[in-house]
Amino acid sequence: MSTREALESLARLPFETVGPATVDHHRSLRQHLPEVILCEGKTVPQCVTIARAIVRRSDRCLATRASEAQAEALIDEFEDRAEWKEEARAVVIDRGVGRKVRRGKAGQGKARRGKVPRGGSVLVVSAGTSDLPVAEEAVVTLEFMGVPVSRVYDAGVAGIHRLLAHVRALRAASAVVVVAGMEGALASVVGGITDRPVIAVPTSVGYGASYGGLAALLAMLNACAAGVTVVNIDNGFGAGYAAGVIARQSRGRKRG
Amino acid sequence: MSTREALESLARLPFETVGPATVDHHRSLRQHLPEVILCEGKTVPQCVTIARAIVRRSDRCLATRASEAQAEALIDEFEDRAEWKEEARAVVIDRGVGRKVRRGKAGQGKARRGKVPRGGSVLVVSAGTSDLPVAEEAVVTLEFMGVPVSRVYDAGVAGIHRLLAHVRALRAASAVVVVAGMEGALASVVGGITDRPVIAVPTSVGYGASYGGLAALLAMLNACAAGVTVVNIDNGFGAGYAAGVIARQSRGRKRG
Amino acid sequence: MSTREALESLARLPFETVGPATVDHHRSLRQHLPEVILCEGKTVPQCVTIARAIVRRSDRCLATRASEAQAEALIDEFEDRAEWKEEARAVVIDRGVGRKVRRGKAGQGKARRGKVPRGGSVLVVSAGTSDLPVAEEAVVTLEFMGVPVSRVYDAGVAGIHRLLAHVRALRAASAVVVVAGMEGALASVVGGITDRPVIAVPTSVGYGASYGGLAALLAMLNACAAGVTVVNIDNGFGAGYAAGVIARQSRGRKRG
Amino acid sequence: MSTREALESLARLPFETVGPATVDHHRSLRQHLPEVILCEGKTVPQCVTIARAIVRRSDRCLATRASEAQAEALIDEFEDRAEWKEEARAVVIDRGVGRKVRRGKAGQGKARRGKVPRGGSVLVVSAGTSDLPVAEEAVVTLEFMGVPVSRVYDAGVAGIHRLLAHVRALRAASAVVVVAGMEGALASVVGGITDRPVIAVPTSVGYGASYGGLAALLAMLNACAAGVTVVNIDNGFGAGYAAGVIARQSRGRKRG
Amino acid sequence: MSTREALESLARLPFETVGPATVDHHRSLRQHLPEVILCEGKTVPQCVTIARAIVRRSDRCLATRASEAQAEALIDEFEDRAEWKEEARAVVIDRGVGRKVRRGKAGQGKARRGKVPRGGSVLVVSAGTSDLPVAEEAVVTLEFMGVPVSRVYDAGVAGIHRLLAHVRALRAASAVVVVAGMEGALASVVGGITDRPVIAVPTSVGYGASYGGLAALLAMLNACAAGVTVVNIDNGFGAGYAAGVIARQSRGRKRG
Amino acid sequence: MSTREALESLARLPFETVGPATVDHHRSLRQHLPEVILCEGKTVPQCVTIARAIVRRSDRCLATRASEAQAEALIDEFEDRAEWKEEARAVVIDRGVGRKVRRGKAGQGKARRGKVPRGGSVLVVSAGTSDLPVAEEAVVTLEFMGVPVSRVYDAGVAGIHRLLAHVRALRAASAVVVVAGMEGALASVVGGITDRPVIAVPTSVGYGASYGGLAALLAMLNACAAGVTVVNIDNGFGAGYAAGVIARQSRGRKRG
Amino acid sequence: MSTREALESLARLPFETVGPATVDHHRSLRQHLPEVILCEGKTVPQCVTIARAIVRRSDRCLATRASEAQAEALIDEFEDRAEWKEEARAVVIDRGVGRKVRRGKAGQGKARRGKVPRGGSVLVVSAGTSDLPVAEEAVVTLEFMGVPVSRVYDAGVAGIHRLLAHVRALRAASAVVVVAGMEGALASVVGGITDRPVIAVPTSVGYGASYGGLAALLAMLNACAAGVTVVNIDNGFGAGYAAGVIARQSRGRKRG
Amino acid sequence: MSTREALESLARLPFETVGPATVDHHRSLRQHLPEVILCEGKTVPQCVTIARAIVRRSDRCLATRASEAQAEALIDEFEDRAEWKEEARAVVIDRGVGRKVRRGKAGQGKARRGKVPRGGSVLVVSAGTSDLPVAEEAVVTLEFMGVPVSRVYDAGVAGIHRLLAHVRALRAASAVVVVAGMEGALASVVGGITDRPVIAVPTSVGYGASYGGLAALLAMLNACAAGVTVVNIDNGFGAGYAAGVIARQSRGRKRG
Repeated sequence: MSTREALESLARLPFETVGPATVDHHRSLRQHLPEVILCEGKTVPQCVTIARAIVRRSDRCLATRASEAQAEALIDEFEDRAEWKEEARAVVIDRGVGRKVRRGKAGQGKARRGKVPRGGSVLVVSAGTSDLPVAEEAVVTLEFMGVPVSRVYDAGVAGIHRLLAHVRALRAASAVVVVAGMEGALASVVGGITDRPVIAVPTSVGYGASYGGLAALLAMLNACAAGVTVVNIDNGFGAGYAAGVIARQSRGRKRG
Repeated sequence: MSTREALESLARLPFETVGPATVDHHRSLRQHLPEVILCEGKTVPQCVTIARAIVRRSDRCLATRASEAQAEALIDEFEDRAEWKEEARAVVIDRGVGRKVRRGKAGQGKARRGKVPRGGSVLVVSAGTSDLPVAEEAVVTLEFMGVPVSRVYDAGVAGIHRLLAHVRALRAASAVVVVAGMEGALASVVGGITDRPVIAVPTSVGYGASYGGLAALLAMLNACAAGVTVVNIDNGFGAGYAAGVIARQSRGRKRG
Repeated sequence: MSTREALESLARLPFETVGPATVDHHRSLRQHLPEVILCEGKTVPQCVTIARAIVRRSDRCLATRASEAQAEALIDEFEDRAEWKEEARAVVIDRGVGRKVRRGKAGQGKARRGKVPRGGSVLVVSAGTSDLPVAEEAVVTLEFMGVPVSRVYDAGVAGIHRLLAHVRALRAASAVVVVAGMEGALASVVGGITDRPVIAVPTSVGYGASYGGLAALLAMLNACAAGVTVVNIDNGFGAGYAAGVIARQSRGRKRG
Repeated sequence: MSTREALESLARLPFETVGPATVDHHRSLRQHLPEVILCEGKTVPQCVTIARAIVRRSDRCLATRASEAQAEALIDEFEDRAEWKEEARAVVIDRGVGRKVRRGKAGQGKARRGKVPRGGSVLVVSAGTSDLPVAEEAVVTLEFMGVPVSRVYDAGVAGIHRLLAHVRALRAASAVVVVAGMEGALASVVGGITDRPVIAVPTSVGYGASYGGLAALLAMLNACAAGVTVVNIDNGFGAGYAAGVIARQSRGRKRG
Repeated sequence: MSTREALESLARLPFETVGPATVDHHRSLRQHLPEVILCEGKTVPQCVTIARAIVRRSDRCLATRASEAQAEALIDEFEDRAEWKEEARAVVIDRGVGRKVRRGKAGQGKARRGKVPRGGSVLVVSAGTSDLPVAEEAVVTLEFMGVPVSRVYDAGVAGIHRLLAHVRALRAASAVVVVAGMEGALASVVGGITDRPVIAVPTSVGYGASYGGLAALLAMLNACAAGVTVVNIDNGFGAGYAAGVIARQSRGRKRG
Repeated sequence: MSTREALESLARLPFETVGPATVDHHRSLRQHLPEVILCEGKTVPQCVTIARAIVRRSDRCLATRASEAQAEALIDEFEDRAEWKEEARAVVIDRGVGRKVRRGKAGQGKARRGKVPRGGSVLVVSAGTSDLPVAEEAVVTLEFMGVPVSRVYDAGVAGIHRLLAHVRALRAASAVVVVAGMEGALASVVGGITDRPVIAVPTSVGYGASYGGLAALLAMLNACAAGVTVVNIDNGFGAGYAAGVIARQSRGRKRG
Repeated sequence: MSTREALESLARLPFETVGPATVDHHRSLRQHLPEVILCEGKTVPQCVTIARAIVRRSDRCLATRASEAQAEALIDEFEDRAEWKEEARAVVIDRGVGRKVRRGKAGQGKARRGKVPRGGSVLVVSAGTSDLPVAEEAVVTLEFMGVPVSRVYDAGVAGIHRLLAHVRALRAASAVVVVAGMEGALASVVGGITDRPVIAVPTSVGYGASYGGLAALLAMLNACAAGVTVVNIDNGFGAGYAAGVIARQSRGRKRG
Repeated sequence: MSTREALESLARLPFETVGPATVDHHRSLRQHLPEVILCEGKTVPQCVTIARAIVRRSDRCLATRASEAQAEALIDEFEDRAEWKEEARAVVIDRGVGRKVRRGKAGQGKARRGKVPRGGSVLVVSAGTSDLPVAEEAVVTLEFMGVPVSRVYDAGVAGIHRLLAHVRALRAASAVVVVAGMEGALASVVGGITDRPVIAVPTSVGYGASYGGLAALLAMLNACAAGVTVVNIDNGFGAGYAAGVIARQSRGRKRG
């Protein structure tokens, strides 16, 4: 394929103008994920309008960082096809959502699996109870992508034996998402234990000199363990998506 | 495997005290990569001592961010087993380095491949000529891991047609490393074109309000394209290593 | 004209003391724009008092960053001469505003044109739906100046084909205003496509390490494309005004 | 012109791979300016190689932020076609440079004009003697673009009568470049006096809490006068280029 | 006086424990100003308790940064001896306050003078209408100290003729307080016009890259005019107090 | 004890999964302090659930940074065993709390002592009235640990004689906690007077350029007096705990 | 005097164009201080040229922050009229400098006095030995202004008895300059002891989290003692000048 | 002892003026440590002069952060009484230094002990080889204080088994000093393992977003483990001194 051909293919990409938004219908093909709506900063009508355009074409849609008002409006619009994942601040819109993604409740244990993909699975580890919403956002994203996901929550380094109990799981996953606020040390410790790709998510959990997640962000960027990469503060979706992409193209492995 | 078993296995891990350093011999097993030496901040004798301990056990060693003096001392010590990758500021020590990693010169084209692994390949994209040392550090790391790697250099967004000419390659790799300084916009654009994991490396290239790579770092953390994760400023090694880990566990794919 | 003559002319400039404010009546002559009121930080009575003094002399007035309360008070005061541009958070006060500036609704398409000036036109491009208020502030400012303005909204670089569809418009305008939050990469890409002056407005849209627009601001200041200049975060007015001044002294050009 | 046509035209754009660099030959067409080399961060051989590729095609080239070593190598390469503008830290390479751009010495007065363009002229104002290199970089850029340029240097606000003596010139230019370090107040004062587009360049001149130009940068971004836009710290080239683009499309005006 | 004598005199200084507060009764002797209460961060009962202790001993008290609730409680406590200066967010408690400090309303003109001191007077200059609360805090403080004070408000540098009209007043005062937000350029311009001590107060007025007054603070610290000193952001009290201390020990001068 | 034995002991540490939390029961053994709950960032049910799990095992629990709603829920749950220390924003849960920790009211004087430990005592010094909540958090923590504690409040350096009156107490304690906002100078002065370990707590008390405690934090980190160590902004618990640990292992000393 | 008259008087102010500099001869009249040259950032020839222009008109000149090369060139130019104050990094050029400013050596004791002015005197206090150059810059400036100045050096708060020994002097001066790096606590303590205006100079002395003087700067801006104003980091000249202006208009006072 | 008595005792404290320095002879009594000289920022003669004054009185002196030139001058001055601890960048001056502090070489093992004090011992743990100089500064300080000290070096969390091997030692010491750069996670992990006071020292080891130790500093301030306090970046002396003070007043304990 020549440059010209590549560009021509770009020119044929579908998009649609919906009020002030330009919905990129191609993304669902290009990235194997329907358009995701970041609700934060959008008005309620904008969220609904964009979701309607996406669902019209892709049948599914994920709305993240949804306020209660935005979530209610989306539930109203899509009724039994939409589910409000409160802990993750997300709304999942899917044909069979009542059936397929029924149990998104956070807890210690295996998350529900959608249609099992060809690849591997992802482990989501969080440092503290307050990191829950961000960790759950990653979990919901992975579930939406159909990637198997497990949880290890509240395993911060101050009581490192809580983490060491999961060494086997840390080495079995195709990718590990580490969610931590405060000093973010968990990413380094996990990165030193597993040889799998580690996606670190700093959270804004903390106070004072945590500077809204900056301390954790810097710590993770400077992690002394190789193989750790980082996403934006509180960006559970981004971490989940990146881990999902890795897992999907992975050969998977036997569970230890 | 219980917590106790996991901890016991940790207790059996090998390490060795060498002067003020504690060499972690287990890492080569655990992470499928012999200990890598970050030369920056170490004295010349420390570099040599640590390298000696690693090579004694693993037969191979990678020394990054080596000054000219450190590189010379390592070459002196390991003679024909060591090679000074000047553009990457790295020294590769390997049994058959004269034969196996001969051609590390930066350029536009395919990098040499070591023993082809089971997995996929990596594409390293850089924004400008000044980003070369960081991009080459990623390339050398990938070569050292035995992962096939290709280069697209000087393809910044100010002349976006230079990048669009490589759309096919961007979609064929198992992972893409994007190296950019200044405003770091290349990561977002690449992330929007490919559905592969993108590891973004901000570089300290720039002046004034680039703040030694901070502008690029923030831009990459805020990349509007999903699937982009970020490593520390100028951390070519980290990006190469993370991309290599992903590629090795990938199923690979046909080249487009 | 000697220094003394220039200073004497300064001494003759009109201004008026209105309560705690000193209204600069000369600005409408000097800058071809009646005094604009930045409502943020002013009490409701202060806004009304200052607007009254300006309108008494210039017959027109633009109030930006108006809260709902401030807007209502201005509408009450000037009745059918004032219009509340809600999306732009601005109030336009003009003799014939009911007739002349009727349609300020945001959308994809041409903005209404006032009395066509001698010069060229301006294109306002925005990256995401959440950037709308800032983009509309620029549009309202340009309309108030009587400069023709077109809109391309929600054309962020994550789906770059949405932007490439407007290459012709990007090259036809006398100046381009680029409005983007998050990583602000749009300014660099636009700057690489057009040879027109590009005024970049970082917005506070984003979260975490976007630091209220800092990430976009730094990215735009470091834009690798030449010809990009930057205004304050969320300063739609400033960008619109600067672009309008450029367009008015431009020779214009044939539309592509 | 459709999206597809626009993209096809992008696909036909010329570029050339020269070692690790990818020279964008299209820019000279697209932006009416041959490729400019930012020498900082490049090796001496890289500078020469890139310059050779540009000159081979465009006959002219501007190298900015050149160290003495880089400048000497370029002079050696292009001999009588190249001139070292020491105060501006720039090398101008042009066919008739001995004849055409002879006098680039900084001073108070008119800069030399190349082939007079159709449009207006630019005035470069600086706050202090130490801002000279940045101001001269803007001047050299404008001369290279063939835009008439005048200088008012060392006119900081601590002795505001020095600036007021040039009110007429500030209002006659098609665009004004303001170069200032320390507190950068000059941009606001100039912006209040003229109704022309003002491009402000913060410089790293200062000490202590000037933070390498940050104080001036923030001040200029917050300038209370409308019409002021800002470029990166010390970016004389960017300011000159943006002002030149504005001036070239301007109708010009009678000198007051 | 020996060290021992000095320390002994320190040991004899009066203070009083009032709940969690330790009121420093000596300050009214030492600094010729009764204890001033910074209400921000204190509970309503704490404010009243401390005020009571001070007034019991000194008969007068100034409460700054008082919320409406704090102000009401103080008025309730001290009845006709207390006055709520709403624009300055301050409460003045004084024996004859009904008679002596009656007119604290902000405006353009002379502030009321208490018992005329031996020294000079102070001029308070502000850049914009939104800077009013901080400027008035300085004025109330000076009135409380009995120092004559005049006001020049809304004289920002964007319309510099508004400031130049007051050159005579700027040179007649014993000290000038300059209150400005946004880019804070007013301090430099005033410092260049007068040879009097200039106390600059950055305010948090502004948005985006003003960073809550940081831009103005840095600009004022880097003021190119000599004789400018700076206080904390929004610290109208501190500026007023420092100017008052200077004025009181000044010989005063004829009004020009 | 060998590495393996140490690790085995780690493996035997008790923890318990309670919903999304993993309660570390070992901490009460390991650190002689039952699990402490940082309520901030947790939901009300999470606080209660975790407290219940801790109390079930340890009989005691300390909940810090509790909102009113969290405090009420804990009081409801544990009734007469819980006490709401409002000034310290803490809830103490203990068997005999009605009897043992009855008097936690802040004031000048001795705090109540629990079962007197073998070691020394701690002195808590605060700079201003607004620092009270943080100082009281330290006091409550020390009381909960059973360490004798005294208070010196509102002894900031602006009236240094208030501090000098307590020189004897400063030298008698086994550790001194210094709580100060604004410029945090108190830590340096105390550190210069006593030879005891000084734990400095910067508070977010202040405004403008105090940057939420950053000014005090930096000042304390740079304290010119040796022996000063620092905890996070507003971290009264951390300072109290560290001081308590020091005091408990101290030999104590005669009171001066 | 009307606005017009004021502006006319501005128009008559003398200035002179000397190469790239515009020397403001009016300042010596307006501010009772000949033009002062900030040598930092200027070339050696620029320093000499500007000094020559000033001395030609004013007979005296002060050059601050002079490098050794700049100082030597000035000494060469003005020979016996110039003196190199090495500790203050300043060159004093004066007709009778051999006679009048002979002894500028730093030490504990009285600085030399020029022609005694009508007003008061200034005390310069420094915290540590490393603050000497900045303190001496203040002293040289005051001597150049003819203001009596005394020194108290190395009196940091870690050993507060060293400062308390000078309480009398602190209260006798018309203004106090406090020079301190690290945590800058000295300004608060001095401000609490004296009722005189305190000009605080943060210095870049320190390491780590002193951030080149930022810690001291923030501390001084947040000084809890009233009457403290602040200048730029290391700005000994600015502090000296401001204190000198205050002292000159002071009535002075008996020495205690 | 009354306030007056305390102050009188302060008044009797000895100090000595030595050139520009004021040596605080009392500190050796007050803090049981002779005056320590921070050489950084002082000239060579200043270092020698101050050292001479201290030794004259106390017979011992510690000079930290000494450059090679400063160290040589001190060795020259005090000959066989001084020792250059090169790795710690310190000079120890002591009567019997040749005999008493002979072996300061860094390594894995026990540091030499001076006269064994009544209290406990200190363990110094470092994360990487490059942290050596800071760790050794702490060790030298502790040796100088006569406190027993042990070392565990290069035990960063990326290979956590290296640290776990020392669990017993971590729990036996009276205080633990943790020295770490990059992400500083070691402090949290150590704080979770031991119940002893942990003094954390962030180091400037790292690159890019480590920001000269800021990442480690923030991480340590936010350490999720209780009992961790922090000193300035690279402040090995401060950490050693604080740990030493704690150890000296500790009852010590049996070695596990």
